[in-house]
Amino acid sequence: MTPLGTQGTYPYPNEPTWSRSEKVLARTVFDAALKRELQEVMQKTKQMANQINQPSDLWDLERYLTERRKDIDSKYDFRSSRLTKVLGKLLCERRVSEDELRALRKDKVEAIRSCAKCLSEDAA
Amino acid sequence: MTPLGTQGTYPYPNEPTWSRSEKVLARTVFDAALKRELQEVMQKTKQMANQINQPSDLWDLERYLTERRKDIDSKYDFRSSRLTKVLGKLLCERRVSEDELRALRKDKVEAIRSCAKCLSEDAA
Repeated sequence: MTPLGTQGTYPYPNEPTWSRSEKVLARTVFDAALKRELQEVMQKTKQMANQINQPSDLWDLERYLTERRKDIDSKYDFRSSRLTKVLGKLLCERRVSEDELRALRKDKVEAIRSCAKCLSEDAA
Repeated sequence: MTPLGTQGTYPYPNEPTWSRSEKVLARTVFDAALKRELQEVMQKTKQMANQINQPSDLWDLERYLTERRKDIDSKYDFRSSRLTKVLGKLLCERRVSEDELRALRKDKVEAIRSCAKCLSEDAA
């Protein structure tokens, strides 16, 4: 039995240990994905706003923004204990590519891939 | 002492009684003001969306929409017991004009005007 606190946390008890340099690499991937996602929300917001022609469209836009804000806030969590899951989710949503992960160590890429696979099966 | 329920409710114990035909007139004024206010929010939303160029602008727009929705929901309350206050607030905010109220009976116009005056002094 692994003592609590030495390796990862629930629900990923096998979360690998991230070195400082790997965290820097992961941060770059993470930041690029966040930037792209925010750009996407900005573009979609302008599009929805341009198409407003009745009051209910206003509250649809408000709901869209609230949902995107909450989703982005909960998804982009850069704590080490969450990195595999966060990058796995981003890979699963195709917000990061396999190519962007190439600079990471093989054990990390495997763990991220396995997490993405698990999430994609869960969503199916 | 006025028995409860016969004339108005707190905080407007002197709320006048609205006849059926006066309520129809008030409804027209009320609906026109609501329509104008919603048009204003639609226009402002399009303008804010067009000017989005960083993520914080998205959440400013979300906050604006939430505030407008809550304010509009609480302001446009067509219950008879609230009519004087609602029209008074709309007059105070210049969302209805004295001209639009002309068709109402003099006692109603006076009560609405006095409520508007009270609210405008309160806001000053």
